[in-house]
Parts: sequence; structure tokens; C-alpha cells
Amino acid sequence: MATSQLHCLQSVRVSSPHRLSISTSQLHCSQSVRVFSSCRLSISNSYCHVRKNFRRKTNYLVYASTNNFYRDLHLQSKVKTVLDSVKWDDKGLAVAIAQNIDTGAILMQGFANREAVATTISSRKATFYSRSRATLWTKGETSNNFINVHDIFLDCDRDSIIYLGKPDGPTCHTGAETCYYTSVIDLLDDQQNGDKFPLTTLNSLESTIVKRKGELEVPQTGKPSWTRRLLLDEKLLCSKIREEVDELCRTLEENEDKSRTASEMGDVLYHSMVLLALKDGKMEDVLEILRHRFSQSGIEEKRSRKILG
Amino acid sequence: MATSQLHCLQSVRVSSPHRLSISTSQLHCSQSVRVFSSCRLSISNSYCHVRKNFRRKTNYLVYASTNNFYRDLHLQSKVKTVLDSVKWDDKGLAVAIAQNIDTGAILMQGFANREAVATTISSRKATFYSRSRATLWTKGETSNNFINVHDIFLDCDRDSIIYLGKPDGPTCHTGAETCYYTSVIDLLDDQQNGDKFPLTTLNSLESTIVKRKGELEVPQTGKPSWTRRLLLDEKLLCSKIREEVDELCRTLEENEDKSRTASEMGDVLYHSMVLLALKDGKMEDVLEILRHRFSQSGIEEKRSRKILG
Repeated sequence: MATSQLHCLQSVRVSSPHRLSISTSQLHCSQSVRVFSSCRLSISNSYCHVRKNFRRKTNYLVYASTNNFYRDLHLQSKVKTVLDSVKWDDKGLAVAIAQNIDTGAILMQGFANREAVATTISSRKATFYSRSRATLWTKGETSNNFINVHDIFLDCDRDSIIYLGKPDGPTCHTGAETCYYTSVIDLLDDQQNGDKFPLTTLNSLESTIVKRKGELEVPQTGKPSWTRRLLLDEKLLCSKIREEVDELCRTLEENEDKSRTASEMGDVLYHSMVLLALKDGKMEDVLEILRHRFSQSGIEEKRSRKILG
Repeated sequence: MATSQLHCLQSVRVSSPHRLSISTSQLHCSQSVRVFSSCRLSISNSYCHVRKNFRRKTNYLVYASTNNFYRDLHLQSKVKTVLDSVKWDDKGLAVAIAQNIDTGAILMQGFANREAVATTISSRKATFYSRSRATLWTKGETSNNFINVHDIFLDCDRDSIIYLGKPDGPTCHTGAETCYYTSVIDLLDDQQNGDKFPLTTLNSLESTIVKRKGELEVPQTGKPSWTRRLLLDEKLLCSKIREEVDELCRTLEENEDKSRTASEMGDVLYHSMVLLALKDGKMEDVLEILRHRFSQSGIEEKRSRKILG
């Protein structure tokens, strides 16, 4: 792998049997590089450290820091100040919750110590402290399903942390999207095997529509649901979407009450989501597109790039 | 207060100086009743218990259970089984995270013991165990900003809990919507005072649009942003919304690729959200409308009513 490829290190994964050679003069900020087994590693800079204590099976976690020593030192000092402000418990831990930036789904919850948060800040990969193994662990180090952290939040008491990020794949070791797939309501209702995620409204609506789509082949008696009718009749669907959007626009043009706007907006959203489902599209993809279009050109993302990237 | 008003107890709050008289034959399931100071309480049923150990300042927490003793006993047995399956830590606690069902915002994080979860199941109000005060506390017992829990989720390890619900008002004691208003990125960038919530994409986009709306009175040099142009020109906005919806429909009518559908759906969502903001509407309201329309008629909600309500 040529070092010229390593400018944006957060997305670099080197799989065996490559030789990785990094000149840190090419790194513009502190990042972590993950090197898998059979890699031969060579780093040409006096200011870098190889953390062999992170060895887990055949993986190494390697920190290669910028050659802009002073800038990095300044950042490290700021990170220290932030970490000092966290109210770590008597074991030096705080609760750390990982949340999907696009869907809002709570993916998992673990604990973090100073080093875990510092590693997350520098690597952008959600990193926790495993109490059972008494070691740091980065979600995805085994499965490659990393959680790419966009921002980190502290609560008012400074003893709870959110890693807001985008997962590379399912977060749960069971292969489920999130670790929270057991509904207490289901358990109380003897639905022992019914996996059900803690779906927020938008995700829940999408799930219902997709379910109706899956039932299209099943003959039904009685009056079909509105969603089923829309899914079965593309002409009706498109006509309804255009009609609902027209009604939404008229709430502005004819100065109707804002509650009417919210209601019409709901109609537009629902009918559009039926079309999206019909095309096998996902709301998460729509939201990701919007995030790339709007957030990345925004102040927050620029700031984020400046600090983290 | 007439007992006929008490059919749906979860929304009952009695403020002083009322006399509260409950005949539990009118209660169709186990619920909690909160009675504030100066109330005189009379409950006519042998199967109810007044928990005075919950006394906090001048409040009492009173459990009044259904007169359907056996059904209640069966439910309690199931609740016990669920609570037995939770892996409580050495202090009998598990992490409990409250999440807004409509926006997906993580509102707060506390700890729960068996009694806190049992109370949440029966009362539908997010209830925690305060480690500092060594007592149960229901979020909102002082502020009236309860979190009305729709479902409860356990993670794969059964040691972490999500209370998925709708808050009555701001959750944080500071008056902020959520307790997580401190961005580490902001802190590292010396933006010490910039409150910033862990906004998921939809909320972040809305926040950006509302911000642009707030800047409309400020004269700008250079090329205005597209959002600003839309906000300043209702005709342009409505024309664009209709145009984008037409493009979305055409991806179905002309069998275009699904990535094109997702992209057009993003355009529809964004432009509609600009109109919503112009009318002072909120996406949370739109989502709440959709939840009431779709979830409450769904299987899950019926099941939830059966168990919890």
C-alpha cells in the first residue's frame, strides 16, 4: 500500500498479507491505523507509538500521530481537559451509548474509560472498555462492523456519553441491527420469539409498510388496508402523492393553520414512503443522502473535519 | 374528583386541595396514581397498597390495582419472570436509557432496579433508581415532565434497558430537551457555550432550516443559500416541491433505479421541511400525527394497550 493512499486514515483497513509503510509526514491529524495479521509494519517518524498492549488475537492497534508535533500537543491538552471534566465512576468508567446518526436507533451500550473516549476521539471508531476482559475494545475490531463516530456528547452530569455515528453493518454480535431486540411488551404477551426493535415513529412506519409489501402475495379477505391498495396500484399511488403535495403547498399558498400543514406533511411523507418501499429503497439511505448533501457542507462538519479529521 | 374520571389512570394527576376517592373496580389494569400534598385519599378495595416509603417532600405514590385479582396476579407473575431474566449488577441495577419515540432523541440515562422497571411497566412513566438518594424516582415527579413509556426493550446481554416514550416536556433539569447538550467536538474547538444536541440527520436538517429562517432578517452579501432563497420565495418553494414530487413519481412510472428514488425522496423531504418550517411547524408534530394514525391502530399498540393499559 502506497503511503499516498493514507491521507484520510480513518477509512483505512489493511488486510493481510500487505506490507504497510507509513510516513507520518503525510498524516494531517492523529488517527488510528488498524493492521491485521501478516502485515509488516514500518513507521518512519519519531513521534509515534505502537500499542502492543492492544493485541487481541492477531490484530495490532497502531497510533501514528501527525508530525505537526505542537498542534497535536495542543489538541491532546484539550482532549485531556475534556476527559478531566467527565465524572468517571469509582472504577474510572462512564456509560457510553452508540446511536445511529441517520435512523436514531440506539445500537448498543457499553462502558468507556478515559482511554476509550480518547481513542474514539482520535480514531472516530466507537471504542469501549470491556469490564469482563479488562481491556479496551473497538466495536468492529473482530467483525469489521465499526461504528464511525461523527460526534460525541456528554450529559448534564458529565457521567454519560453518546457516540453518534454510522455503523458499517449490524452492531449486535447476533447479527441484529441493534442489541435491543427484546421487547418487554412482547415478553409479557408471551411473544417470546418476536424480535422487535425499539422503533421510533419513522422507522416503525417504514417497517409497517415493508411488512404490508411482504404480504402482497397472500390473498386477503375483507377490505384491504390503504397501504395495500397503494402498493398494488402504482397509478393510484402516484396520483395520491401528487394530490397530497398539492394540499401541502396550498396550506402555505392559502395561509391555512400550521396544524393543517403538519397533517398534510404527514400524508406526503407516508405516501412517499410507500413509493420508496415499492422501489426497495430505505429511509436510512434517504437520510444518509440528505446528511451528505447538507451536513458535510455545514459548519458542524467543517469543524468536525478540522478537529477529528 | 369523580371516580368516573379515573378510567384511564395513567394520565391522572391530582393537585391540591382535592379529595381523591378511587373505587378500584373502575380500574381495568394496574396503574399508579400520584397524589400531591393536601389530598385526602380513600381507596375502596382490599387489594391495594399505599407505598409511603416513596414519600418525597409532600408526594405520595399510590398503587391501586385492578379488582380482577387473578388476571393481575398472572401479569405480576409474568413481570417477575421478565425481571428475573435481567442481569442486574452487583448493586441490583441496570442502565436505563430514555428515548423519544418520535424524534429518536436520547433524552436521559439513569439506572433502574427491579422495582423501577416494575413501576415503569405498571405506570407507563419512566422510573429510575437514584443512586445518590437511594430511592426510586419517576422522571417528572417534581417537574411534571413525565416520560410516557410506550415500550421497554432489553439488550442482548439483558443488562441494559431502553424506555421508549414520549416526554411531556423538556427532560433535563436545566430545561433542555435532552440531557446531552454538550458536544465534545465543540469543547475541543473551544465552543464552550454552544449548546448542541446529538441531532440525528432529520433533526439536524430541520435545525439547519430553522436557523436559516432565523437569519432571514439579517442582510447577506454574496450568493444566498438555496434554503434562504426558498424561504424568501413561497412561489419558488411550492413550484420546487411539486417538481420534486413529480420527479419522485417518475422514478416509479419510468422504472428508474432505486438510488434515484432515494435521491428524489430526499429532495421531496427537504423541500417539504422548508415549507413546514416556514409555517412554524415541527417534524416532531408530523411524526406524532403519523404515530397516532398508524401505530395506534396497529397490532403492537393493541398489544401494548392490552398489557399496559
